[in-house]
Amino acid sequence: MRIVFLGAGNLATRLSVEMQRVGFTLVQVYSRTQANAALLGEKLGCPWTTDIETVVTDADVYVFSLKDAVLPEIISKMQTNKGVWIHTAGSMPIEVFENKVERYGVLYPLQTFSKARCVNFDIVPFFLEANTKEVADLLQNIASALSENIHFLSSQKRKRVHLAAVFACNFTNHMYVLASNLLEKEEISADVLLPLIDETASKVHEMTPHAAQTGPAIRYDENVIGKHLDLLDDPNLKNIYQLLSQNIYKEAHNE
Amino acid sequence: MRIVFLGAGNLATRLSVEMQRVGFTLVQVYSRTQANAALLGEKLGCPWTTDIETVVTDADVYVFSLKDAVLPEIISKMQTNKGVWIHTAGSMPIEVFENKVERYGVLYPLQTFSKARCVNFDIVPFFLEANTKEVADLLQNIASALSENIHFLSSQKRKRVHLAAVFACNFTNHMYVLASNLLEKEEISADVLLPLIDETASKVHEMTPHAAQTGPAIRYDENVIGKHLDLLDDPNLKNIYQLLSQNIYKEAHNE
Repeated sequence: MRIVFLGAGNLATRLSVEMQRVGFTLVQVYSRTQANAALLGEKLGCPWTTDIETVVTDADVYVFSLKDAVLPEIISKMQTNKGVWIHTAGSMPIEVFENKVERYGVLYPLQTFSKARCVNFDIVPFFLEANTKEVADLLQNIASALSENIHFLSSQKRKRVHLAAVFACNFTNHMYVLASNLLEKEEISADVLLPLIDETASKVHEMTPHAAQTGPAIRYDENVIGKHLDLLDDPNLKNIYQLLSQNIYKEAHNE
Repeated sequence: MRIVFLGAGNLATRLSVEMQRVGFTLVQVYSRTQANAALLGEKLGCPWTTDIETVVTDADVYVFSLKDAVLPEIISKMQTNKGVWIHTAGSMPIEVFENKVERYGVLYPLQTFSKARCVNFDIVPFFLEANTKEVADLLQNIASALSENIHFLSSQKRKRVHLAAVFACNFTNHMYVLASNLLEKEEISADVLLPLIDETASKVHEMTPHAAQTGPAIRYDENVIGKHLDLLDDPNLKNIYQLLSQNIYKEAHNE
């Protein structure tokens, strides 16, 4: 199976490298940004281009791993062909390919990717969607070469999975950022947080996150909450602290 | 060393069980709540009481693991004695014991505890504070029997560590709660989030949380952010989403 990658960001990098590792043939990389295109092309040992008109037309699969904001534009600029076009975006509907090519689909991996870090794809949930039975079979073949955790899901539901991922990953990581900032101000190494971060993640393998909740907010310990608010100078941080504490309490008491 | 525990909540339970496991002698448990006192007393195989006046007076160490709001009250009600009194609270100053006993201190483990879940104490950071050199040595002895990760820290700095822990653990877990709720509404098992939750935690062992940040907010992808806000009916959730997204963007662009 001959594959072209459009995009060279975090997800495009990790997914294309993994696809090559499990035996697919990467024939070309396209990115609007020359540095990214070159970097990924060299990593994969395959040609790269920044000119959408020079994308080869005889590949079997075209994987669009682009920022949502530019995906429709790149699709419209690209010359139509006989390949199967798929994207990897949580919040873009499958219909973005409609009227452009005959066979299309979505392959959305629920994971956080950074260029420099390998992830274990075996356990990554893949959410698939296809416009025909034939494409569904093809996506199933691709995904099962990558992972053991495969689901077919509509665009409607996929965007809610993506939203959940923003909370579970992007917002969670921001909590780590805020915690690290607080310690850095005190010249305490943020490494002291790692056992806590790990245990917080591990707990929810054994119990629901509802059952795992601890801390001053769940018992609305005004004594502690008041002291913490006093320590936060930044009005945004104060807001975040207050809003999350109230919501934790509300959630625990089913209001 | 003969130890009395005052409190029978999550932290008191895990810490007393671990102290017993590593060889300390637990002589009595006190809790205002009979069910909790009995449960922990039975777990430790030691006497328990709900009457503060019947707490034994000849122990070596008294560990107060109580909600901040009740700690000063229980200390004031308790008969003074020759033991070393310590508490385990992040946000309570050491001075809470002043004028009550001669030797006192703080032993604060930076971890999330639930009664039903064992944790690996070896790597838990312990933050210690003592009013005398003798108490400092005693706390060092106790803590090093429990963990390899020991720090002496002032009350002033400890409360900032506690605040950081609220972000890194309590607020993080709340993000897991919100993500699970979103999936449950769609009848999708929240288990699909676990590889993402694990990877988000693992990443910050290898890179700073700043470098690990991904998702629509960091590139302020209005396309995705707008769609996500449309999906959130609850005004609190909308608020949380907006506030955190703005803060992620601000943090990444150093504003």
